[in-house]
Amino acid sequence: MLSVADNELLTRTGPGTPMGDVFRRFWIPALLASEVGDPGSAPVRVSLLGEKLVAFRSPDGEVGLLEARCPHRHASLFWGRNEEDGIRCVYHGWKFGRDGQCLEMPAEPEDSSYRERVRAVAYPTREAAGVIWAYLGPEELKPEFPDFEFKDLPEGQFHASKRLQRCNYFQNIEGELDTAHVQFLHRTFGEHDFAPQHNFDAAENPTYTIEEHGSGILAIAQRHFPEGGNYWRITPFLMPAMTLVPSTGSHHTMTAAIPLDDENMWGFTITWQPDRPFDDEDWKRDLEGLTLHVNVDPETFIPERNRDNNFLIDRKKQMSLTDGNFTGIDGIRNQDLPVQEDQDGAICDRSTEHLGTTDRAIVAARRLMLRSAKALQKGTEPPQAQAAGAYRIHSFAGAGTEEQTWQELLAGNQPADGPLATF
Amino acid sequence: MLSVADNELLTRTGPGTPMGDVFRRFWIPALLASEVGDPGSAPVRVSLLGEKLVAFRSPDGEVGLLEARCPHRHASLFWGRNEEDGIRCVYHGWKFGRDGQCLEMPAEPEDSSYRERVRAVAYPTREAAGVIWAYLGPEELKPEFPDFEFKDLPEGQFHASKRLQRCNYFQNIEGELDTAHVQFLHRTFGEHDFAPQHNFDAAENPTYTIEEHGSGILAIAQRHFPEGGNYWRITPFLMPAMTLVPSTGSHHTMTAAIPLDDENMWGFTITWQPDRPFDDEDWKRDLEGLTLHVNVDPETFIPERNRDNNFLIDRKKQMSLTDGNFTGIDGIRNQDLPVQEDQDGAICDRSTEHLGTTDRAIVAARRLMLRSAKALQKGTEPPQAQAAGAYRIHSFAGAGTEEQTWQELLAGNQPADGPLATF
Amino acid sequence: MLSVADNELLTRTGPGTPMGDVFRRFWIPALLASEVGDPGSAPVRVSLLGEKLVAFRSPDGEVGLLEARCPHRHASLFWGRNEEDGIRCVYHGWKFGRDGQCLEMPAEPEDSSYRERVRAVAYPTREAAGVIWAYLGPEELKPEFPDFEFKDLPEGQFHASKRLQRCNYFQNIEGELDTAHVQFLHRTFGEHDFAPQHNFDAAENPTYTIEEHGSGILAIAQRHFPEGGNYWRITPFLMPAMTLVPSTGSHHTMTAAIPLDDENMWGFTITWQPDRPFDDEDWKRDLEGLTLHVNVDPETFIPERNRDNNFLIDRKKQMSLTDGNFTGIDGIRNQDLPVQEDQDGAICDRSTEHLGTTDRAIVAARRLMLRSAKALQKGTEPPQAQAAGAYRIHSFAGAGTEEQTWQELLAGNQPADGPLATF
Repeated sequence: MLSVADNELLTRTGPGTPMGDVFRRFWIPALLASEVGDPGSAPVRVSLLGEKLVAFRSPDGEVGLLEARCPHRHASLFWGRNEEDGIRCVYHGWKFGRDGQCLEMPAEPEDSSYRERVRAVAYPTREAAGVIWAYLGPEELKPEFPDFEFKDLPEGQFHASKRLQRCNYFQNIEGELDTAHVQFLHRTFGEHDFAPQHNFDAAENPTYTIEEHGSGILAIAQRHFPEGGNYWRITPFLMPAMTLVPSTGSHHTMTAAIPLDDENMWGFTITWQPDRPFDDEDWKRDLEGLTLHVNVDPETFIPERNRDNNFLIDRKKQMSLTDGNFTGIDGIRNQDLPVQEDQDGAICDRSTEHLGTTDRAIVAARRLMLRSAKALQKGTEPPQAQAAGAYRIHSFAGAGTEEQTWQELLAGNQPADGPLATF
Repeated sequence: MLSVADNELLTRTGPGTPMGDVFRRFWIPALLASEVGDPGSAPVRVSLLGEKLVAFRSPDGEVGLLEARCPHRHASLFWGRNEEDGIRCVYHGWKFGRDGQCLEMPAEPEDSSYRERVRAVAYPTREAAGVIWAYLGPEELKPEFPDFEFKDLPEGQFHASKRLQRCNYFQNIEGELDTAHVQFLHRTFGEHDFAPQHNFDAAENPTYTIEEHGSGILAIAQRHFPEGGNYWRITPFLMPAMTLVPSTGSHHTMTAAIPLDDENMWGFTITWQPDRPFDDEDWKRDLEGLTLHVNVDPETFIPERNRDNNFLIDRKKQMSLTDGNFTGIDGIRNQDLPVQEDQDGAICDRSTEHLGTTDRAIVAARRLMLRSAKALQKGTEPPQAQAAGAYRIHSFAGAGTEEQTWQELLAGNQPADGPLATF
Repeated sequence: MLSVADNELLTRTGPGTPMGDVFRRFWIPALLASEVGDPGSAPVRVSLLGEKLVAFRSPDGEVGLLEARCPHRHASLFWGRNEEDGIRCVYHGWKFGRDGQCLEMPAEPEDSSYRERVRAVAYPTREAAGVIWAYLGPEELKPEFPDFEFKDLPEGQFHASKRLQRCNYFQNIEGELDTAHVQFLHRTFGEHDFAPQHNFDAAENPTYTIEEHGSGILAIAQRHFPEGGNYWRITPFLMPAMTLVPSTGSHHTMTAAIPLDDENMWGFTITWQPDRPFDDEDWKRDLEGLTLHVNVDPETFIPERNRDNNFLIDRKKQMSLTDGNFTGIDGIRNQDLPVQEDQDGAICDRSTEHLGTTDRAIVAARRLMLRSAKALQKGTEPPQAQAAGAYRIHSFAGAGTEEQTWQELLAGNQPADGPLATF
């Protein structure tokens, strides 16, 4: 349970808010690289943390990210011309470099130095894994780009998708961190011989350990096998808004929940394979429509299954014990969307919830975020922002013997040069 | 004229409002029985008095009505599974009985007693005349179900419909109680030989008497015939939001105006025939599209004629003296909708109105409601809520001789065991 | 740069606001004459300055403009019957003359004098150049109708159009007064041999002089030719919201920006030709789809190119140097719409803008409006409202020799009996 005040603190990320300041200390996904198109393509609108921006890929191939409003009389630079060394407002031809510096004011007298004193708000960008990342904070505090394993992978070894989720960003984070829901929300009948009268097998329920690490926390879920040994699922949460849901196979997946505003978020999902390119089978199994990546409208990024069509729930399928599933909705991410988006209120009221023992990871993530926001208000910068190397980690899912510790298992599945490799 | 403060008091019915408390002392229509479908069907969303709820008919045939948000982490129970003895949230499998008691928490340890301490908000329901009724108030104050005449009638002798009216609930009640508008809004040309220059016949205007009765008030409209005798129309208003518009023939009609929120209401209309089933002629004349029941969209309950299509007003028909009508809109209820919905503001501003002599019934109903709300704030419960028998009444419309009193005429048209039968 | 307080003062025009009071001292365009149709046609809804009104052309041909809400119980008079000498509410048949006086209350007793004491809010109207004009201020301050040159022109010598612009009214006024944007926003390639690397010719930039005149200000833009002589563009701003953009040829054009509410405005554009009727060539060149008049949806008055379709911007055309234009949008008015509508916020935040030397006319118009609003709050009426003759003026665009003054040139292009003819 969160107090109304802490819930406000947790969920508000606009300019000038404490949690907005936390977000503005980190590199965050801004938009897909495919959105800005080829060099010299048309500018695109993007909203992040309550700020209205335009992004464009200059003819030289670099990506600019500027406040949408022209500093002159605030016409939107979305209408602007993407020229050789900057974007030019169509209203009066003012031109701005990717760093926001005004380069031309053709309607001013030739000898005017006014342009030297005018800057548009501009944010540095960086491309990685098919995503344009941005840093929206103070220039002097700009951290090194996180050392994500996917950062320097070649084309073919990563896949990124983006979707609009119409809920506060933290409702996604809570869902990602919450391993306990897997055997309910994502259950398929047949496989588990589920029946409505079924008593869920308590052995399937995890017990949680929470551990801090360099870039956030680890939610360590342990399920003890009656026959001995454990099934472990370890989900890292990386500041400020990324989660690594455990996956099997040779690929890894990270999801980022980036506020567009306080009631809507961009869900970025990046899947990467460190060792080899995806093949056709990978695509079918892990990267297409019914996985953690969903089909979206290419203009709005609204998922095909969305609240306006009740996520195409099939109530017959939901109650069928032979070929149904627990929700009546197909697709892992698709099943997450209704329970993440359709909570109480535009922003979930957390003052009246009833948390259970399996919500420990959620509580820990909330605490970390709230602690960071409160500390930053008092002048203490979040150390995770400066821990670039601590972002080079994997999640873990798998069985271990009675004797094996989670540290041992986790370390065995990490990038060789990652911080958890020696746990 | 109402002060702004009294108008607020009259029109606000959300949780914690004084008038909301009044509504929460009475059984009110919640949704059509057909909406919850057969036993074990999918849950449906329903909003009442500003509360978001889900309704479902359990496999045993009983209807549950719970707050939409799961007490755990507030995912909507709309997505839930309607199981043998309760509804199960798809997020983590928590299960709730129709009384709100948490029955299962499969993700909690087997020996946990946590579930015994968690209850969802649940409201008792009751089915009558094709409508699911609900009581949204404190359990210990739950009244007996009103003794409506239609309460125990068999299928075929009642018909219920529901529509969304996009206005505050009281705008409907005022329209129903207002007999004076009938000869204007509902006038058909030809029949009355109407012409724009026509001086309306003052003899058609009623004089009003208001009488309190056990469950509300009677609006008694008297029209004196020049040749002697009177035409009477007696419209009961039943607390908190029901009106019985006088009808001729052997059937009776009640309309309830139930706030969905403060700017929208569900209009429920129930027509019943105590003595015999409806036949084809009854259906055509009294129960289909152009009567007090209207055709609606089956998903949204928005009437086919609605504000978005200007109620399909036919301006030629409105001005035609040969085959027109006063509004250019066909259908009694359809004619009521624009004048009830399209008033000044989302909630009608009553501080600047100009009431006339024919508005006495409206003034009386407002006073009754305001008095009830103010008394309840001081601890005095509305006595009407406990007067189940006082809901067993009929309206009256008909002519009487010079000597006949309205009491005599009204009593002659009542259920034998009703409270007005001995007036 | 405007303070937030002054920006509020400038942009708010609802009832009781200081700038709303300024607007309520002038005759303003209310709707197109064609909207009210033939005598006796159906009433139409019109919103002006935050007020909801209905307009109707009585069977006698005169136009009434009344507050939409019936004074009785506030049902909208839009549903009313347009009868011989007034509009009749369909709810209870109350009838109101064009002056707002209640003429009939058929539901009241025959001998009642109540109707004499009830008036609907009604505003005087006047028809000129295909537009219904209205005065929404206090009756005793009603000014003479402005002596616009088009006022008494016969059919065929004027053309009026109306469009909905989804922005505050002043965003349009600023665009109209801003001559500097012409060589950017409205630039066509080929003609100017434009290239992205092009340094705009500083000689094309105007220097501004601002002059007050009887009904507002003159924005006098001077461009000095390198070879001697000047190119002058003189744009009058007429209180409270009209601008005359310079045009060449024998016709003249006025645009009025009339608040519907504070975030939306009606753009009225009137083109007239004092000397002769428009011929086919005039229509093609000056009055149809890609001129200052735009094609709109006949029901909503939303332009065909609008924010919902990104004004049909053609990004290829925008960047083509052979057959493109600066915006990628065809049509003068169409090019203005995105930069006027898509500014920062629903109402442009002017506290963070960076004005240039070419924004002097805008600053002057803001000052005039703010000064008027502040003076009126202290009891000083705006003198422009009483200067009917001062509205009989033309704009000017053209070249002059080194010796010719703007006064001389302007005077040579004015109506003989206009106030600027002797400048």
